[in-house]
Amino acid sequence: MTANLYTLGQLAERLGATLRGSADKPVAGLASLQDAGPDQLSFLANPQYRKHLSITRAAAVLLKPADAEGFSGDALLVADPYLAYAQLSHLFDRKPQAPAGVHPTAVVAADAVVEAGATVGAYAVIECGARIAAGTCIGAHCFIGARSVVGAGGWLAPRVTLYHDVRIGERVVIQSGAVIGGEGFGFANQKGVWQKIAQIGGVSIGDDVEIGANTTIDRGALADTLIGNGVKLDNQIMVAHNVQIGDHTAMAGCVGISGSTKIGSHCMIAGGVGMVGHIEVCDNVFVTGMTMVTRSITEPGAYSSGTAMQPAGEWKKSAARIRQLDDMARRLQQLEKRLASVTPGGEAPSEA
Amino acid sequence: MTANLYTLGQLAERLGATLRGSADKPVAGLASLQDAGPDQLSFLANPQYRKHLSITRAAAVLLKPADAEGFSGDALLVADPYLAYAQLSHLFDRKPQAPAGVHPTAVVAADAVVEAGATVGAYAVIECGARIAAGTCIGAHCFIGARSVVGAGGWLAPRVTLYHDVRIGERVVIQSGAVIGGEGFGFANQKGVWQKIAQIGGVSIGDDVEIGANTTIDRGALADTLIGNGVKLDNQIMVAHNVQIGDHTAMAGCVGISGSTKIGSHCMIAGGVGMVGHIEVCDNVFVTGMTMVTRSITEPGAYSSGTAMQPAGEWKKSAARIRQLDDMARRLQQLEKRLASVTPGGEAPSEA
Amino acid sequence: MTANLYTLGQLAERLGATLRGSADKPVAGLASLQDAGPDQLSFLANPQYRKHLSITRAAAVLLKPADAEGFSGDALLVADPYLAYAQLSHLFDRKPQAPAGVHPTAVVAADAVVEAGATVGAYAVIECGARIAAGTCIGAHCFIGARSVVGAGGWLAPRVTLYHDVRIGERVVIQSGAVIGGEGFGFANQKGVWQKIAQIGGVSIGDDVEIGANTTIDRGALADTLIGNGVKLDNQIMVAHNVQIGDHTAMAGCVGISGSTKIGSHCMIAGGVGMVGHIEVCDNVFVTGMTMVTRSITEPGAYSSGTAMQPAGEWKKSAARIRQLDDMARRLQQLEKRLASVTPGGEAPSEA
Repeated sequence: MTANLYTLGQLAERLGATLRGSADKPVAGLASLQDAGPDQLSFLANPQYRKHLSITRAAAVLLKPADAEGFSGDALLVADPYLAYAQLSHLFDRKPQAPAGVHPTAVVAADAVVEAGATVGAYAVIECGARIAAGTCIGAHCFIGARSVVGAGGWLAPRVTLYHDVRIGERVVIQSGAVIGGEGFGFANQKGVWQKIAQIGGVSIGDDVEIGANTTIDRGALADTLIGNGVKLDNQIMVAHNVQIGDHTAMAGCVGISGSTKIGSHCMIAGGVGMVGHIEVCDNVFVTGMTMVTRSITEPGAYSSGTAMQPAGEWKKSAARIRQLDDMARRLQQLEKRLASVTPGGEAPSEA
Repeated sequence: MTANLYTLGQLAERLGATLRGSADKPVAGLASLQDAGPDQLSFLANPQYRKHLSITRAAAVLLKPADAEGFSGDALLVADPYLAYAQLSHLFDRKPQAPAGVHPTAVVAADAVVEAGATVGAYAVIECGARIAAGTCIGAHCFIGARSVVGAGGWLAPRVTLYHDVRIGERVVIQSGAVIGGEGFGFANQKGVWQKIAQIGGVSIGDDVEIGANTTIDRGALADTLIGNGVKLDNQIMVAHNVQIGDHTAMAGCVGISGSTKIGSHCMIAGGVGMVGHIEVCDNVFVTGMTMVTRSITEPGAYSSGTAMQPAGEWKKSAARIRQLDDMARRLQQLEKRLASVTPGGEAPSEA
Repeated sequence: MTANLYTLGQLAERLGATLRGSADKPVAGLASLQDAGPDQLSFLANPQYRKHLSITRAAAVLLKPADAEGFSGDALLVADPYLAYAQLSHLFDRKPQAPAGVHPTAVVAADAVVEAGATVGAYAVIECGARIAAGTCIGAHCFIGARSVVGAGGWLAPRVTLYHDVRIGERVVIQSGAVIGGEGFGFANQKGVWQKIAQIGGVSIGDDVEIGANTTIDRGALADTLIGNGVKLDNQIMVAHNVQIGDHTAMAGCVGISGSTKIGSHCMIAGGVGMVGHIEVCDNVFVTGMTMVTRSITEPGAYSSGTAMQPAGEWKKSAARIRQLDDMARRLQQLEKRLASVTPGGEAPSEA
């Protein structure tokens, strides 16, 4: 059996799933219910796609037992089809495996340590005192600064930059173009001229972290910028100096976190959110897309800002009215008072 | 005649323009009406710059016939001066031409194909099974992942990363720092811990596409992320996994498109716009700057969100009042009812 | 005495500070009041941290004379403790110093000039006609395009790209991943198809500028994009073609400036701000985070847009009401008129 070809029975065994159908049926890939061909496995996770179940050509479908009742095709019954799909997805990943060892073109400082079983790609540069742990793959064109450490089992895609004194845990994945440990934006203003503050802290990143393409995490001004275990950061996120992000918090693309802000664990920060500096966000907070977080959040829950999209002509009117809103509020209050004065027994409500 | 030196007559011929003036006058460059010297060609496209026409020192001006009437200088008369300027601009571009062939420092896998007439710059890395078509220039420090294909006549600026299984059409330009095919942000939550979903799709990019500096386009979770023909993406745009962008749509800088969103053809998306995932935007939609698109758009037209800028002191009042808006609306309705009850023959309008 | 170890007396002398305490006390680093150990210097700049003064274990504290009155520990008295901290921070910076000279793996064009005392890192590529001035460090993997010039005393972190014809002043710092001189986003629309406009201008950057990680500054369409002296740009900023930024203006992360916009001197632009193109912002303007600047600003001062964050449930109500705002304004005005008509001597206020 070649790689990337499995039987339904093998997949059921891997998942501990209940197999309904032919154990010998071959599965060569994964696809959505709509796209799947007869040698591909599919899944039903989002109820809005149930309508595709009846027409799918998939070899079999990952289903909750309750969803399998009206389905006549082959199925793997599991408690959480989406999680089962996540687990199986790695079997069908065509991401190339780099051959272990240090590429002859890599420039590795004499006192840097590349442990046995680690991989260093073409034209990578590893500076003095750095350490790459076993089982970790450093992609082509990566730069690992002095004394930086990458823990075991990690993967740095091609062209990742770690400045000096960056400490990265185990099983960390960093996508191309990410810059970890850049100098934080610290300046003191002297009569209108900005004087640079050396950023003498580093960056500490926990285990099982994922960092997206072109994301930047600045080094601390004095102590380290801190990223907890299990944190997932999408592409083009900006984490400023001295920020702290708690365990298992996830952030979607284009989020910007200003300096010294501290975010709790198990938060979800949607795309394009911005946070001012020096605030704290507690655990289990969900911030919706493009929200501007200008103050600390002390209660778990969902938070938003911004206005809803409108056709541009209507939007112009709304935007103009917002600028009159303070005046409108005053006039409303005045009306209430005047009406109360002319209404027998009337009473002006108190201002909100 | 050296490169980058033309006569007015030559330029008129190239454009099919009507020449008014001296065919032998030399033109060594292009400049705005205000900046042009006596050996530079200029153009009038935006009516607000007509005032500069009388004072320009330009050798000649690209003009619509109607705009030429009051102008006494030399002119090339064309239907669309801006388009004519676009066409001539390439004559005066000092962008260096890389010598054809593979730089001796490039690392090209044994089974990768670099067609005759293609160029590969210093320290580029081309992985197994990749193919670079004729007439395409791969800049220094580029990384072309396994089995990725770049069509004919393209230009990848220095330091572009293509992951594996990225398919790029003909005449595609990609600026420095762009990352195409990074792993999409896909995780399944298992009791508060994020489990990674392998991203087994690729990226397909059409012909005549332009991709800006540090823009990221993630690979699909199952099928390919799709970018149509003629699409123009500015810098620092984030295109998440499974997104589809229709032909000839243009996006300005810093736009973020969340996963699985489908954008039509001939759309214009201004800078800083964000779109949530799993929505559809029809053809011929214009979205103004920094709009948050939170729902599908089914009608062509212009769309906006956000509030207009104010001096910060006034803004604070507006922002505070917005939070009272629901209360204000209720009080307004109540007033209307009470006033109707005290006005002889009065009638409360129905709530909007 | 090893590097990075000083006595209090030495530090006092460097700053011209008044020493209160033991001149011989060794100082090995800098830390916050809370974190400092007995061999570290700290500082009190932000009054909200005064409470930490009584419990700090720091060797000494940089203080204003007025703040020193109730403090019994050792102190260095200075007029501006934050500025003093900025000045001393460089003494304790562990950023590695690259050895002078050109790394043997660097590819330097025959007619490029690397002045004596400049440093060029591994795998850097320097194209024809470029010039690197004395005392400047070009990091590993940098690309310096044809005819580009980097002035004396600068530092380009690893993996910075300068396209051709980029002129950079003295003492300029550029963080990893920055792209200077990428082709501006210029296209002319011809019957729905975008025709590229060659970007034949360059980029001119003044002295003492700092440019953050993954920031992009596009080259001009005709003339140069201009960055003044002392400008500080944080990470992931997007500066489009033809933009001009005045001296000593600072911008925080994720700001986007559209084409041909002109920003004055000594402005402060907070994170996530977006500016449309072709506007002018005068000197001494402060724009708060995530503001959308859609028109020119002609008066110094602070400016804002956006709405304040709310719990998501309340936000939904506010957002819905904003769309009714024009209607509400009309109804309010109508109520005022009607009330005036039923109130003896009443008078409808004029609309704002």
